[in-house]
Amino acid sequence: MEQRISLITLGVRNLDRARGFYQALGWKASGPASADVVFFQAGGLVLALWDRTQLAEDSAVVDTGGWGGVTLAHNVRSPAEVDEVLATATAAGGTLGRAGAETFWGGYSGIFLDPDGHPWEVAHNPDWTLAEDGSVRLG
Amino acid sequence: MEQRISLITLGVRNLDRARGFYQALGWKASGPASADVVFFQAGGLVLALWDRTQLAEDSAVVDTGGWGGVTLAHNVRSPAEVDEVLATATAAGGTLGRAGAETFWGGYSGIFLDPDGHPWEVAHNPDWTLAEDGSVRLG
Repeated sequence: MEQRISLITLGVRNLDRARGFYQALGWKASGPASADVVFFQAGGLVLALWDRTQLAEDSAVVDTGGWGGVTLAHNVRSPAEVDEVLATATAAGGTLGRAGAETFWGGYSGIFLDPDGHPWEVAHNPDWTLAEDGSVRLG
Repeated sequence: MEQRISLITLGVRNLDRARGFYQALGWKASGPASADVVFFQAGGLVLALWDRTQLAEDSAVVDTGGWGGVTLAHNVRSPAEVDEVLATATAAGGTLGRAGAETFWGGYSGIFLDPDGHPWEVAHNPDWTLAEDGSVRLG
């Protein structure tokens, strides 16, 4: 199995609300607005939004509700940019989970939650290389 | 906020078991085996494994247990390769959630669950372009 991820699908309760939130972050969806799944090209992979009940069935899991042990992160180039993205996300209808602050691992980060409660860490990690195209390299 | 994802962290109950599973898939971890977080470079982003309780606290969420509405997918180049990856994953200690089969969207996919119950869809989507470097492009 090659060492890569092609698609991350977030289960949502209200597709219009979820699409609107990510669009308010400045993201552009692909495909028609009437589709029952929304795709965003995100670098070399795709982020999808889909009905959470259908996603659970398709994923062969039982949906217990709430958080299930997956957190996404969006790395930026400075602590100030962490605060800017958190402000954008809360203005777009997200919830601030943790304000931007220095972290135990030597960086600076905060958390916002999307309208379905999916957490996103917004982080500046001085030890990782963030390329011009947004890709991240360890070390 | 730029349209990209830097890091996906999976919360795990037993880090050695989880690291061993992904290594048995053929993935190579970065950093020392003694670290309390395991990183895998996965194309332009990073997949991390970390203690689920610590991840919940760090993510400003309550952990309700079980699945929480996030499914990852790994796209491959043919239906036969879907079956091969599912066989690799079950041989490595994963659980088959759904055997490879034709899907309602015109592709072929199956599901395996890692030792912590995180579902991975393994898919062949004839409508998406899979580049030689493994990156995926819509359309």
